[in-house]
Amino acid sequence: MSEQKLTLGAIFYENFELLDMYGPLEMFGILDQVDLVTVAEKAGPVKSTQGPKTVADYSFANCPPLDLILLPGGIGTIPELNNEAMLNFLRERSTSVKYTMSVCTGSALLAKAGLLDGRKATSNKLYFSLATMQSDKVDWVEEARWVVDGPMVTASGVSAGTDMALGVIAELFGQEKAEWACMVSEYEWNSDANHDPFVKYLNKGGNL
Amino acid sequence: MSEQKLTLGAIFYENFELLDMYGPLEMFGILDQVDLVTVAEKAGPVKSTQGPKTVADYSFANCPPLDLILLPGGIGTIPELNNEAMLNFLRERSTSVKYTMSVCTGSALLAKAGLLDGRKATSNKLYFSLATMQSDKVDWVEEARWVVDGPMVTASGVSAGTDMALGVIAELFGQEKAEWACMVSEYEWNSDANHDPFVKYLNKGGNL
Repeated sequence: MSEQKLTLGAIFYENFELLDMYGPLEMFGILDQVDLVTVAEKAGPVKSTQGPKTVADYSFANCPPLDLILLPGGIGTIPELNNEAMLNFLRERSTSVKYTMSVCTGSALLAKAGLLDGRKATSNKLYFSLATMQSDKVDWVEEARWVVDGPMVTASGVSAGTDMALGVIAELFGQEKAEWACMVSEYEWNSDANHDPFVKYLNKGGNL
Repeated sequence: MSEQKLTLGAIFYENFELLDMYGPLEMFGILDQVDLVTVAEKAGPVKSTQGPKTVADYSFANCPPLDLILLPGGIGTIPELNNEAMLNFLRERSTSVKYTMSVCTGSALLAKAGLLDGRKATSNKLYFSLATMQSDKVDWVEEARWVVDGPMVTASGVSAGTDMALGVIAELFGQEKAEWACMVSEYEWNSDANHDPFVKYLNKGGNL
């Protein structure tokens, strides 16, 4: 059981996917043990794929020390793959946190930054190849709700991030705390990281 | 099947619960058939219970015509129960939309506004009495993931809003569209509005 309050940095970029971010932020945010901070390359409003804008309170330049990183996916992942400011921020900050967590295509950014090399990882099922084409030094796991490999934690698409967050909460604060978070948020947790009902859609895109 | 694009007004207020809002907004927001607009009493950043701020693009005064309303809950519900500007906005706008949807303690606001009188409705399980004490003219349903009564749709706590949103999507655009939304968001839908594993915590609060 961790006693010290942890700071989670939620990393925003234009056209992030809403639930990638806000499923995990709900679960971490209801804990007394975690403070959330919102971070982007530049502070200020950041538009999601779906439209609503979140205010990033910190820029990469003035971001406080972090204990946890949460990196969402979304259609905005693609331009970010060529954003050295983002890749460098991830490279620098991931070395000093307990867990760097990605959801959905967020793992493509971690792979591009070289942070998953030599590790197991997963990604969004429908667009899996967006992640795998970023690095052939990653042991890509097709069938997984989420994958933990040391300090790097990668979730499958969108809703999988919420299950991953609860898995990390269980790791940090105990299983009872994760179950408490489920109770207060009326959430039925898929607590088995290997249960992946969406692997059958691997690389089939969104037009089935 | 609806052909016309629908506008969903997401109603923000200080200390709204993140997932109450963003679970449903993910599901509606991934549809080509729905545009999302963010609305609050005053336009500008609105802080959530968990900290992150969303930008309300419209105020109550300049909010465009809406086809759907989404009202979240959260600890901010309590002061809003005495905010006539909020209650009047809900009274005025609910008459011209297809569905007014609440999540969690949001139904306490609808009840206080008199909008649930003579109808069936549900609310957050742990704090159910916050809703029921607002009106004794509502047929409060203790065991339900969500309840549809005409144009008024009320969900149980937090995560239940996502299941409700998919139920409304199925109603508006067909079951296949709801299942497509689940696929692209890798979401395992509890599609049975009567399946409520959290009723056992009725009025037990968050300190079990």
